[in-house]
Amino acid sequence: MKDRELRQKAREIFFAAIEAVHPSKVLKRVCTLQKETLRIMGREFDLSSFEGIYVVGAGKGSAAMARSLEEVMGDRIREGMVVTKYGHSERTERIRVLEAGHPIPDESGVEATSRILELLSKTTERDLVICLLSGGGSALLTAPEEGISLSDIKELTRVLLLRGVDIKEMNTLRKHLSRVKGGKLAKRAFPSQVLSLIISDVVGDDLSSIASGPTYPDPTTFRDCLDIIERYDLEGEVPPSILKHLKRGREGKVEETLKEGDPVFSRVTNIIIGNNLMALEAAKRKAEGLGFRSIILSSMVEGEAREVAKVHTAILKEVIKTGNPVERPACILSGGETTVTVRGNGKGGRNQEFALAAALEIVGLEGVLVLGAGTDGTDGPTDAAGAFADGSTVRRGEEAGLDPLSYLRRNDSYNFFKPLSDLFVTGPTGTNVMDLRIMLVS
Amino acid sequence: MKDRELRQKAREIFFAAIEAVHPSKVLKRVCTLQKETLRIMGREFDLSSFEGIYVVGAGKGSAAMARSLEEVMGDRIREGMVVTKYGHSERTERIRVLEAGHPIPDESGVEATSRILELLSKTTERDLVICLLSGGGSALLTAPEEGISLSDIKELTRVLLLRGVDIKEMNTLRKHLSRVKGGKLAKRAFPSQVLSLIISDVVGDDLSSIASGPTYPDPTTFRDCLDIIERYDLEGEVPPSILKHLKRGREGKVEETLKEGDPVFSRVTNIIIGNNLMALEAAKRKAEGLGFRSIILSSMVEGEAREVAKVHTAILKEVIKTGNPVERPACILSGGETTVTVRGNGKGGRNQEFALAAALEIVGLEGVLVLGAGTDGTDGPTDAAGAFADGSTVRRGEEAGLDPLSYLRRNDSYNFFKPLSDLFVTGPTGTNVMDLRIMLVS
Repeated sequence: MKDRELRQKAREIFFAAIEAVHPSKVLKRVCTLQKETLRIMGREFDLSSFEGIYVVGAGKGSAAMARSLEEVMGDRIREGMVVTKYGHSERTERIRVLEAGHPIPDESGVEATSRILELLSKTTERDLVICLLSGGGSALLTAPEEGISLSDIKELTRVLLLRGVDIKEMNTLRKHLSRVKGGKLAKRAFPSQVLSLIISDVVGDDLSSIASGPTYPDPTTFRDCLDIIERYDLEGEVPPSILKHLKRGREGKVEETLKEGDPVFSRVTNIIIGNNLMALEAAKRKAEGLGFRSIILSSMVEGEAREVAKVHTAILKEVIKTGNPVERPACILSGGETTVTVRGNGKGGRNQEFALAAALEIVGLEGVLVLGAGTDGTDGPTDAAGAFADGSTVRRGEEAGLDPLSYLRRNDSYNFFKPLSDLFVTGPTGTNVMDLRIMLVS
Repeated sequence: MKDRELRQKAREIFFAAIEAVHPSKVLKRVCTLQKETLRIMGREFDLSSFEGIYVVGAGKGSAAMARSLEEVMGDRIREGMVVTKYGHSERTERIRVLEAGHPIPDESGVEATSRILELLSKTTERDLVICLLSGGGSALLTAPEEGISLSDIKELTRVLLLRGVDIKEMNTLRKHLSRVKGGKLAKRAFPSQVLSLIISDVVGDDLSSIASGPTYPDPTTFRDCLDIIERYDLEGEVPPSILKHLKRGREGKVEETLKEGDPVFSRVTNIIIGNNLMALEAAKRKAEGLGFRSIILSSMVEGEAREVAKVHTAILKEVIKTGNPVERPACILSGGETTVTVRGNGKGGRNQEFALAAALEIVGLEGVLVLGAGTDGTDGPTDAAGAFADGSTVRRGEEAGLDPLSYLRRNDSYNFFKPLSDLFVTGPTGTNVMDLRIMLVS
């Protein structure tokens, strides 16, 4: 099989995966409404007992999910309001779509969230609230607690990023500064029944992390927040309003996030309707259809991109050498989200860095292709979703005067792949279930 | 299945793997002599045309291989001499066993090598030389080129280690300073027929790397050596005798290592009789016998131990969550050799660090066991081969007042596992095919 052919197949596999988790497709596929029975992924909900059905939501995919839900439920929806990223609106009939800033929250987000909360204050125990959540929901659903301004939140984020506070710790803080995160959206809807339909952009689908868990119990506490402040020695850098709020919270003077066992959750059902694994499963079916023996390694791969590449290419080389873990023609799939420890000042993303590190491990191999790509079509601050690597990548780079190792050292994968035409450019795909890695051996 | 039971099974799987590649076992299993036909791994050698059969060799396993070869070939062997590490001798009848320093070469190694070369100078085109190579052969087979002393070589090694020169670059230099490495042993035996039987301790079984390739072509050149000196800015630190030799080599005044196509190699056959993959295959058979659905990911896993652990445990978690890539009860196997970038001043080894990083990823999971271990029974400068990790490791550590993350940060895995009795201690196993990772899900 020629290299070009192998690339084409990798593309097809990638887009089959995307389609399986696309907000405009997935709802129609997993939800059916027959009379008053809503079926979602093997579960049934009797809608006949509900007076009104309301829809709220947040995320980059929320508008597409809203439109898709309207196609399923039509005029059974009474009213709704979702917030999505600028430019991500869709034409809807009954569900109002608002736009706001992402990844940095803005006043439009605050305004939109306040309108969503207003809507929820109207719903009663006889109503059903369907909540549509997808990646980006955390930034879009923005409602700082009293006494805290949006600019305080932004300043906190800046400080946390600077100090390399990890995303889980960041979310712990965010949840304790918000009137919607950490289960508090569900509380606003209480005593209405809440059904959250979720596209997961989080490794392992931790519901308390996706969009900062607006309809899910939060295991973290104000004490944890102050531990983080202490651990990173941030006391002097965090805005005073925030520090004050956290300390008052620890003293029990501010309400905690909602905990497991809270009666609110007896009225809440969370269902993941799209995630990395579903994308991988669709990729696997497609690859098998194309004649590849296929395996899914894991949907939960994390770790430093260049090291993750070494393990992946070790498996690729074993396929070629001995037919383990599968015989060729083979497709090895994995998902999740790697990280890049930035050491240089180059341009790239975790998927392009993965591909460049992979290229260095598969020099000279024939009939192999590696594709690493973000399912949202964006990899780092670049216009590419990821990049292709094969056995000729390093040679072609060197022929073009590009030393792959030095590009990797500078985290400059984008500028290595671009002149080789080996970037994988898709434009925004409209969904996000983290990254996919597709390795083919013909 | 109880944790203890799972550990016991992991042990059994490990030892089944070791047995499959043990120098005292593998030769007897893969070689048979019927009359004058020697069969080795599907190949046949007619011995009737040879007058004398001589045996040479080097490596930590060379004495055990020699003894084992005597059991196969008996008095068909005329004479032999192998060099092994101090304390690794075995009782032999016809093949003389010499001992020398490892991993730092010493004068005994120089003396032993010179006696081996003397033996080879006697053999003729009517003779067969069987060469037994295993890990450690590079240090044990020591014959500096004229004008270079052993202490020059040691000083070079010290400088290279200090600068973090990688093992491939180190071998490039070593081969160009030696009278036996880089194919030169085969040249000494020429025109005798040479049959090298090799236990590989090198990722991917690169024959030019194992024991620095005494019977295999060397793709590197004197120019490469000087490039390395330049790249690491070592000109002022390398002993003058070595620098002079390398420069004379570049000018063509010293003979290069042997290159592919050299007529010497028309008389040489190299056969790998033991490697990481064979160990993994034996582990897989054993695991299947114990009822685990088993896969071999790769025998060629490299990369930073703690990052490799993340990818491995991601697969483990996927097995539990969705039955990918295999349904439980499952055994996921991999081999190769990871690295540890030392940042702290703790005590540990790459396998113990792998296990500690794995423990942090599988907190609370039940019915899982992770074992990372060196097949030689040694992991770093410790008395352990590796360590066990399971879902309770982190909790048990914390209960004992040990913070796993801080032990990992300090590269102090040994001192984390020791008080928990989670070290895997085997003593020297007598073989080395790098590392094994065994992950079980009951």
